[in-house]
Amino acid sequence: MPSYTAPTKDMQFILHDVLKVTEHSIPGYDELDRDFTAAILEECGKLNAEVLAPLNVVGDTEGCVLENGVVRTPTGFKAAFDQVREGGWTGLDMPEEYGGQNMPFVLGAATLEMFAASNQAFAMYQGLTHGAASAILAHGSDDQKATYLPKMIACDWTGTMNLTEPHCGTDLGLMRTKAEPQEDGSYAITGQKIFISAGEHDMADNIIHLVLAKIPGGPEGIKGVSLFIVPKFLVNEDGSLGARNGVACGKIEEKMGIHGNSTCVMNYDGAKGWLLGDLHKGMRAMFTMMNEARIGVGMQGLAQAEAAYQNALIYAKDRLQGRAVTGVENPDGPADPLIVHPDIRRNLMDQKSFTEGARAFVLWGATLIDQAHRGKDDDADGLISLMTPVIKGFLTDKGYDMTVQAQQVYGGHGYIEEWGMSQFTRDARIAMIYEGANGVQALDLVGRKLAQDGGKHVMAFFEMVKTFCKDNDSEEMEPFVGPLKQASKDLQAAGMFFMQNGMKNPNAALAGSTDFMHMMGHVCLALMWARMAKTSLDALANGTTDPDFHETKLVTARYYMTRQLPATGMHLARIQSGADTVMGLTADQF
Amino acid sequence: MPSYTAPTKDMQFILHDVLKVTEHSIPGYDELDRDFTAAILEECGKLNAEVLAPLNVVGDTEGCVLENGVVRTPTGFKAAFDQVREGGWTGLDMPEEYGGQNMPFVLGAATLEMFAASNQAFAMYQGLTHGAASAILAHGSDDQKATYLPKMIACDWTGTMNLTEPHCGTDLGLMRTKAEPQEDGSYAITGQKIFISAGEHDMADNIIHLVLAKIPGGPEGIKGVSLFIVPKFLVNEDGSLGARNGVACGKIEEKMGIHGNSTCVMNYDGAKGWLLGDLHKGMRAMFTMMNEARIGVGMQGLAQAEAAYQNALIYAKDRLQGRAVTGVENPDGPADPLIVHPDIRRNLMDQKSFTEGARAFVLWGATLIDQAHRGKDDDADGLISLMTPVIKGFLTDKGYDMTVQAQQVYGGHGYIEEWGMSQFTRDARIAMIYEGANGVQALDLVGRKLAQDGGKHVMAFFEMVKTFCKDNDSEEMEPFVGPLKQASKDLQAAGMFFMQNGMKNPNAALAGSTDFMHMMGHVCLALMWARMAKTSLDALANGTTDPDFHETKLVTARYYMTRQLPATGMHLARIQSGADTVMGLTADQF
Repeated sequence: MPSYTAPTKDMQFILHDVLKVTEHSIPGYDELDRDFTAAILEECGKLNAEVLAPLNVVGDTEGCVLENGVVRTPTGFKAAFDQVREGGWTGLDMPEEYGGQNMPFVLGAATLEMFAASNQAFAMYQGLTHGAASAILAHGSDDQKATYLPKMIACDWTGTMNLTEPHCGTDLGLMRTKAEPQEDGSYAITGQKIFISAGEHDMADNIIHLVLAKIPGGPEGIKGVSLFIVPKFLVNEDGSLGARNGVACGKIEEKMGIHGNSTCVMNYDGAKGWLLGDLHKGMRAMFTMMNEARIGVGMQGLAQAEAAYQNALIYAKDRLQGRAVTGVENPDGPADPLIVHPDIRRNLMDQKSFTEGARAFVLWGATLIDQAHRGKDDDADGLISLMTPVIKGFLTDKGYDMTVQAQQVYGGHGYIEEWGMSQFTRDARIAMIYEGANGVQALDLVGRKLAQDGGKHVMAFFEMVKTFCKDNDSEEMEPFVGPLKQASKDLQAAGMFFMQNGMKNPNAALAGSTDFMHMMGHVCLALMWARMAKTSLDALANGTTDPDFHETKLVTARYYMTRQLPATGMHLARIQSGADTVMGLTADQF
Repeated sequence: MPSYTAPTKDMQFILHDVLKVTEHSIPGYDELDRDFTAAILEECGKLNAEVLAPLNVVGDTEGCVLENGVVRTPTGFKAAFDQVREGGWTGLDMPEEYGGQNMPFVLGAATLEMFAASNQAFAMYQGLTHGAASAILAHGSDDQKATYLPKMIACDWTGTMNLTEPHCGTDLGLMRTKAEPQEDGSYAITGQKIFISAGEHDMADNIIHLVLAKIPGGPEGIKGVSLFIVPKFLVNEDGSLGARNGVACGKIEEKMGIHGNSTCVMNYDGAKGWLLGDLHKGMRAMFTMMNEARIGVGMQGLAQAEAAYQNALIYAKDRLQGRAVTGVENPDGPADPLIVHPDIRRNLMDQKSFTEGARAFVLWGATLIDQAHRGKDDDADGLISLMTPVIKGFLTDKGYDMTVQAQQVYGGHGYIEEWGMSQFTRDARIAMIYEGANGVQALDLVGRKLAQDGGKHVMAFFEMVKTFCKDNDSEEMEPFVGPLKQASKDLQAAGMFFMQNGMKNPNAALAGSTDFMHMMGHVCLALMWARMAKTSLDALANGTTDPDFHETKLVTARYYMTRQLPATGMHLARIQSGADTVMGLTADQF
């Protein structure tokens, strides 16, 4: 069975040595000293390694079962959920007035990686609850906040998000679920929602569904969509639970993975709901949840890659097969461990350089979120808005590829379920799809985010890269700054191509959107690796007590620069070929 | 449920317009006229579309069940296997004296694609039988051939190959299964083999296991390995079946996919076996089977990509979601079909340009095999020996990626099992692993095949590309010849890097082996696309009656050149960074 160890040492390095969190002038960051974050991360790591990781295979094997309208989660999930609840993990970064601990998001993000790595299917129950609570926090009335938040933040009640219908996912304007106004100010919700994660289960007293629906007679399409709170059990004035609402799980989907999470068809039959936020502004309210969810999903890409990598590494050190081409390395054994072979090394280094770079990227993104929300900084808000599709799309595409590579280290043993490597791949696959398929992320990036606020944020990003390169124009930093400069130049050339051609023909830009998203992801990871290299060079120059850690960082940084970053040239060439061949066929010619 | 239509039109184009098979001076090729191959391909296509494709999901859902030592295949498999048997498909390219039809392999290869596309798990039962029969044909005594071949070629008896043991897969020198000589000239085989595809099932009267084992006292390691024929039921002198042999299926593995094929742990307990081929030359005999199997597996990569693509295309034309950015295209509907969106196009064109290029590549490879075997041409033999790891490794890596992309077109519907897209991905995953994991293919290519016969074959390949480019130095061919030249130059630069650095440090070459395999795959597909483009340009110039087909080919060829081929530059950059970062860490530093 696979194991998981929380990468707390690397997280501490990123938080304190690279990002230097305590030096930020963001409210709450002064509390994040090294000992404090170590205590939180170690505790969270222990829970994930010892309680949640062992349930990962159980969840995959047993799945969720719907019987007589009740969904039974896999053996052990309920008890583990109680432990998560008791630890107060869902409320880590939530306001104290509703029972949270008011910690910065950056710390929550680090714990989130652990939950998403040890047991993704399990983590979704609390992740969706956190997202739904955030939406209520941002858009709810005082009454709604008082009614729902304390219970949700304590995870006594869980949350869901209901967008997709059988005939529409990305294009929510086609939605048919309707909300009819009632005399008491509530709405009667009727319709079918599909792919509802954690839609029904046995781990919480109540489930608070956030449901997109249209009020008859409202504006056409997406402009007529509103968001509603629809609890599974109605809540009495005194906070106790009342009658069962008119919502039920009709079916649990058979999926490729994340079997431990109940993916439900939810049927709303005149269910009582209450408007959340403004009338016909449902998409705006939902996006509060969605942006948070997208960063969480990007984190899943990293997290599954990390978990898979840890196990591939153990296997590569353990499994004896063949001899090193440069001479026997394990003379006392019948063969050398897999890790002596260059192609296995390449495989492992791909994974290592991705996960560590991605971790720095997401945690840096989390500081932007804190800066935007806690520091009320609009520039940070614009920058993270630009980065959100990159975090979601690039990290889940690459994260999935890494789980496939980790599986490959095991040979045939990676294909049978016994070793658990197939599950990482099957679970990681969904992250490329949900919360906006990655093609939609790329469209959001190129079609919307690049030009947002007059292109201010992407210019700020380029400026940030440029400043870093200028400030680190030294011989020892050249192996990192040189490739970063080149990659950033490629990215700017792609942006220039879009500007020059996209006005005349939007397809010329959109045909290159996925390539652009990947290029930008590479430049972001390269920036992170250059920053980490700088940190490690300084640490070595200052006589660190842990030279091995920093030497390892430097080799891994050089690997990323020489072996991963050259992808930007390929993406640029594709982009510059424009839309001619992409759009060259009629639909019938396919 | 997904559907499958055999791409017979494209196969006919490749066989007759591109490869011009009847003009080859290979024995048997004169019979392959257009009407004849059309008849065979249509009949085979019908069987695959109507009988085997509908059983694909059934096989995935039901899997194989072991009860009281007997393996039950999924509902419908046995009856379908009878139809395959009656059609004589396994014997298509086998000698007439043993009941085959003596057709060239190139025709068999085209049918093989269909079987591997419609139902990979099912196709493996006959595929392994074909491979085992080939090994007996090449290495068996006259008696062995007479005893086993007619039954195997008729598929009344099926075959298996037994290599892997729990502690060894790639490194077969570690093998423990032993073969003890008996007084009657047979051997008593004892040991455990794992991952034995089609190891036990209910569709044939007998199963002929080819088993690698060591004779006690023989040479150490791989040099002491011999190959044995071990039938499930002993065969009496009159050809009737005798006693059950000492071999049994101990367990069926739970796998990520190909559930319809029984992947068995096989326990040999003093089973009666007979030496096949020479003593201690088991690997050589097994490689007869393995090389055929590797091409078959490469074909699976293409085939699963083709099946997934066909369904993604149907969905992209059917599913209405969003509007074209350049203006509404389906004004009567609530939204436009997915296929209007540039990123969906990019996705589909990736798939289309891969599968059509790969098909030409494999069929060209099949003509090399015919030229080598039927034409006794050593140069062709050397060239296909060079190409075998590329066909296996590149086509299965890319084929898998394409199934993932096809799945992505479906959004959330691609993740649930109901639509069948997850199965293509899960089934295609194994092809990167079995018959030598793709890292081993890359090692075989760079560590052995490049230098084989003094590098003669790779030089011949470069010469072939060069000649084609020289012969087609025209303005209309420039969009194809230009990129092909550049990619071939990149490939040669990589080969040069290996020569200059690999002697000093073998790791410098092997660290780039997977990148080289991919580069070479791209150059091969680019050569095929350039040849197809030439064919289509000629057809259009000559007033073809099907201009649409050829215009489509030209757009797709240009797509491959501009959107796929630029990958060679990235691979070259990676290769030229050498082994420093790949091998830079000690095992403990990971």
